[in-house]
Amino acid sequence: MASFDGPKFKMTDGTYVQTKSINVGSSTDISPYLSLLREDSISNSNRAVIFDVNWETETKPSKWSLSSVKLSTRSLCLFLKLPNPFHDNLKDLYRFFASKFVTFVGVQIEEDLNLLRENHGVVIRNVIEVGKLAAKTRGTLLLEYLGTRELAHRVLWSDLSRLDSIESKWEERGFEERLEAAAIEGWLIFNVWDQLSE
Amino acid sequence: MASFDGPKFKMTDGTYVQTKSINVGSSTDISPYLSLLREDSISNSNRAVIFDVNWETETKPSKWSLSSVKLSTRSLCLFLKLPNPFHDNLKDLYRFFASKFVTFVGVQIEEDLNLLRENHGVVIRNVIEVGKLAAKTRGTLLLEYLGTRELAHRVLWSDLSRLDSIESKWEERGFEERLEAAAIEGWLIFNVWDQLSE
Amino acid sequence: MASFDGPKFKMTDGTYVQTKSINVGSSTDISPYLSLLREDSISNSNRAVIFDVNWETETKPSKWSLSSVKLSTRSLCLFLKLPNPFHDNLKDLYRFFASKFVTFVGVQIEEDLNLLRENHGVVIRNVIEVGKLAAKTRGTLLLEYLGTRELAHRVLWSDLSRLDSIESKWEERGFEERLEAAAIEGWLIFNVWDQLSE
Amino acid sequence: MASFDGPKFKMTDGTYVQTKSINVGSSTDISPYLSLLREDSISNSNRAVIFDVNWETETKPSKWSLSSVKLSTRSLCLFLKLPNPFHDNLKDLYRFFASKFVTFVGVQIEEDLNLLRENHGVVIRNVIEVGKLAAKTRGTLLLEYLGTRELAHRVLWSDLSRLDSIESKWEERGFEERLEAAAIEGWLIFNVWDQLSE
Amino acid sequence: MASFDGPKFKMTDGTYVQTKSINVGSSTDISPYLSLLREDSISNSNRAVIFDVNWETETKPSKWSLSSVKLSTRSLCLFLKLPNPFHDNLKDLYRFFASKFVTFVGVQIEEDLNLLRENHGVVIRNVIEVGKLAAKTRGTLLLEYLGTRELAHRVLWSDLSRLDSIESKWEERGFEERLEAAAIEGWLIFNVWDQLSE
Amino acid sequence: MASFDGPKFKMTDGTYVQTKSINVGSSTDISPYLSLLREDSISNSNRAVIFDVNWETETKPSKWSLSSVKLSTRSLCLFLKLPNPFHDNLKDLYRFFASKFVTFVGVQIEEDLNLLRENHGVVIRNVIEVGKLAAKTRGTLLLEYLGTRELAHRVLWSDLSRLDSIESKWEERGFEERLEAAAIEGWLIFNVWDQLSE
Repeated sequence: MASFDGPKFKMTDGTYVQTKSINVGSSTDISPYLSLLREDSISNSNRAVIFDVNWETETKPSKWSLSSVKLSTRSLCLFLKLPNPFHDNLKDLYRFFASKFVTFVGVQIEEDLNLLRENHGVVIRNVIEVGKLAAKTRGTLLLEYLGTRELAHRVLWSDLSRLDSIESKWEERGFEERLEAAAIEGWLIFNVWDQLSE
Repeated sequence: MASFDGPKFKMTDGTYVQTKSINVGSSTDISPYLSLLREDSISNSNRAVIFDVNWETETKPSKWSLSSVKLSTRSLCLFLKLPNPFHDNLKDLYRFFASKFVTFVGVQIEEDLNLLRENHGVVIRNVIEVGKLAAKTRGTLLLEYLGTRELAHRVLWSDLSRLDSIESKWEERGFEERLEAAAIEGWLIFNVWDQLSE
Repeated sequence: MASFDGPKFKMTDGTYVQTKSINVGSSTDISPYLSLLREDSISNSNRAVIFDVNWETETKPSKWSLSSVKLSTRSLCLFLKLPNPFHDNLKDLYRFFASKFVTFVGVQIEEDLNLLRENHGVVIRNVIEVGKLAAKTRGTLLLEYLGTRELAHRVLWSDLSRLDSIESKWEERGFEERLEAAAIEGWLIFNVWDQLSE
Repeated sequence: MASFDGPKFKMTDGTYVQTKSINVGSSTDISPYLSLLREDSISNSNRAVIFDVNWETETKPSKWSLSSVKLSTRSLCLFLKLPNPFHDNLKDLYRFFASKFVTFVGVQIEEDLNLLRENHGVVIRNVIEVGKLAAKTRGTLLLEYLGTRELAHRVLWSDLSRLDSIESKWEERGFEERLEAAAIEGWLIFNVWDQLSE
Repeated sequence: MASFDGPKFKMTDGTYVQTKSINVGSSTDISPYLSLLREDSISNSNRAVIFDVNWETETKPSKWSLSSVKLSTRSLCLFLKLPNPFHDNLKDLYRFFASKFVTFVGVQIEEDLNLLRENHGVVIRNVIEVGKLAAKTRGTLLLEYLGTRELAHRVLWSDLSRLDSIESKWEERGFEERLEAAAIEGWLIFNVWDQLSE
Repeated sequence: MASFDGPKFKMTDGTYVQTKSINVGSSTDISPYLSLLREDSISNSNRAVIFDVNWETETKPSKWSLSSVKLSTRSLCLFLKLPNPFHDNLKDLYRFFASKFVTFVGVQIEEDLNLLRENHGVVIRNVIEVGKLAAKTRGTLLLEYLGTRELAHRVLWSDLSRLDSIESKWEERGFEERLEAAAIEGWLIFNVWDQLSE
């Protein structure tokens, strides 16, 4: 049965985030993991799924293609390494992104949304740029322009030393530490969203 | 004679929503059902019809085509499963959407309106994104970015446990439970609109 | 001599609207009727002409073509059923719409203006979406999103039962009742405009 | 020597507007008249030239071409009937419109500016929609949407019966009366601009 | 050595503007003059360069090409008459416009910026429409829509009779008087900018 | 090992900026320098990287290509002279710009962002125009339109004589002085950002 059986990381408030990293092949069935995320999002939160994406470029002038996707809820973090080109089984991901059951929450995603639509036809119907919302609800213009770390710093004031420590020496980090940074970032934005939507 | 003779679901205020689900074939005449919806909308409400749509993708890079349409009034809910490609009898649906007799009300429909126009040439002349209206009239920015469930939660404060229960385990639900969730969502947005337009 | 010799309908304030319905053929001269409308608009009102249009679709993916036009002043209502394709005599209608002598007033016309320009090259140089104006001048956001009936209801508070009665059973109505509904809608928007422009 | 030797019309304040109407042929030199307009605009006013244009359509789907141009200052009104297609001597008109010495002032010109650029490559670098300015400076939203007559009515409160009388029976009017209406409209907008720019 | 050795004009405050007019040929080196302008802008002002452009049209439908450029600082005014087509030595002008060392200041330049980019690939990275700035900082909406003379009139209240005298009889003026008008206009806008940026 | 071993310049507050200038060839590995920048940005500041770009044009109508890039943190300044056409090793730069770990901060970069995307496919996902932010947070409209020097002048009030002295005689300066100006400009904007983000 599908489960988030990857490394488990302790956050600064003492809770844990369970992770799962999948190297998506042509026969990988990712739908059970997406279902677990949806269930956790509906049961334990404001129906939010935090997402982030990475891109790779291969040609000149450069054309970007989606290389990985990270999806987080309060206590889960799924990291999908995507094949190039995509396999048919990625339609489950397409349908997940198009769903209106949950709200997809991201930071500095304007370019990502354009690239997702133009390069891959991915449509996210219910999506929010959390920095813009923070800027408006807090009346602090600057929040719109910050990355994940700075945004979390100014909204949550939590301890970010572990994240800084991993990201400042990124090239020297192994896969598990990078996964931990991803889990921390997802958890931070989940908490930013949680505070803003109260 | 046409009638909404599908399952009847009890809402949290004790009223019932009568449903009809139609698998639209090349000779199905949907116009009597659309007429009943319009009549109910004109007689029993503010001339609003709540709508939602679903999409299916089949090719890479993905091209989305409309796979189903849900139309709700105060006490009716019509679910149309659409063929691919469309038959000529769907012109009745095109004309219904283009009508100015009623206002079409939806949640997070910006992408849907684009896809309807670009992929199918469907024009909805009198349409409103209810979350934007809620955000402005209530002065609560967040409302613009929420999905159906969260929007209803913050405007109506009604009991949403039945909806959560169905949607959190979506893959395990049968057709009738899914239809019930559709009817509940339509009924919720009808009530959100009703409150906002008072 | 041209005259509005169709049915005459009594409005709720006791005044009458004189109608004329024309099935435009290749040799029909519509210019005398347009002149009478302009004269009535200049003599008896704020130089406003209320307009509405209907569309028909024939192909897949659908391409819409203008099938009828309704033009109203305080006491006149002209209904033009248009041929497909258009004849040369419709240039009179093109010139009428392009004129700056009067202001063309409509409800939920954004899509109509796009289709008129893109599909037919019709340009309306002096045009106003009356719902937007109502929303701004009254400070009631909702007014921007309503159809004719609801807009009139909230601005004029007049008796709309006759209109509701015709439109709720639209399919069962004959041509004269449909013409009466058109005349009532034109008269309502004329009065909405009249109130707003005071 | 070039002079405005056409009919001279008395305005409601007792002043006169001198007119000149020119049927522009391939050898007509319009530049002396444009110079006189510029000189009058610089010497006697706020460097404003009031302009209006007319369009003719000949094909289906319709393509509009500029058929006449009206240019007014405080006391002059030039009416140019343009050939189709244009002759080379119209470059003087192109340069006049592109000049930054004067501000071109018009009513409901958004569509006109689009058509001028797209269909003829005419660029007006210093241009203002006077209704928008009136709406903002007076705080009366409605002013943005009115035609010449209604705008003048609400800003100047002058007697408009002569204009109404000519325009309500437009088809029955001869050329001189139509020229008088053009002169009155130009003079009215000149005075609207003059009041707003004080 | 390059110097501004053209006519020297006295402004209304007693200072002088030194001019240089260059008919740019294929071997003309304009870079020393551009360097002098930059140096003067950096040493004697807020790093502003006032610019204006002229266009010529040759074909139907008209295509505009840049025919001359005027660049002004506090005490210098450079007038470049450009060849058609451009020579390679104009790359110096391209680089000058693309520089971020100075701010390019103009009046009613929106159309000019479009034409520069579309017709010539000229990019001005640091540019400001001074009328818009004046309108906002002074709270006087009208300032956005004025030409150079009227804008200067309302911001500076200086004596503009010399400028009016030259421009009202433009066709009768020789080259030196036209150059004087150009120098005056540049000097006026320099002073408008200087006041606004205090 | 990679290090910023170019000239070291003293800023007006007594701190030093260490520079590195690289002429990027086909086998140059720029990634260690980008890593050092990221580390410095994460460890010593608000995760900001100040950037500026230069363009070169070679054809008519002109097509711009990126010729150099400058990247600054609090104490480092990297100057990359780029080859034309680009080599594969520049993908490291593409990935650096696409990263969300840091915020890219620039002055008057709107045109640059357009050209980067259109001409090179470079995507900067987390980017801010610092002048716009300054204008809004300080309530001083003018700040949006200034170049680096003037913006720094009005936000920091520091001594800019060294920068002015280099830039006013730009053509006569050698490479090291130009590099010093680049380092000063980067340091100034770093401090502007630092003040604004407090």
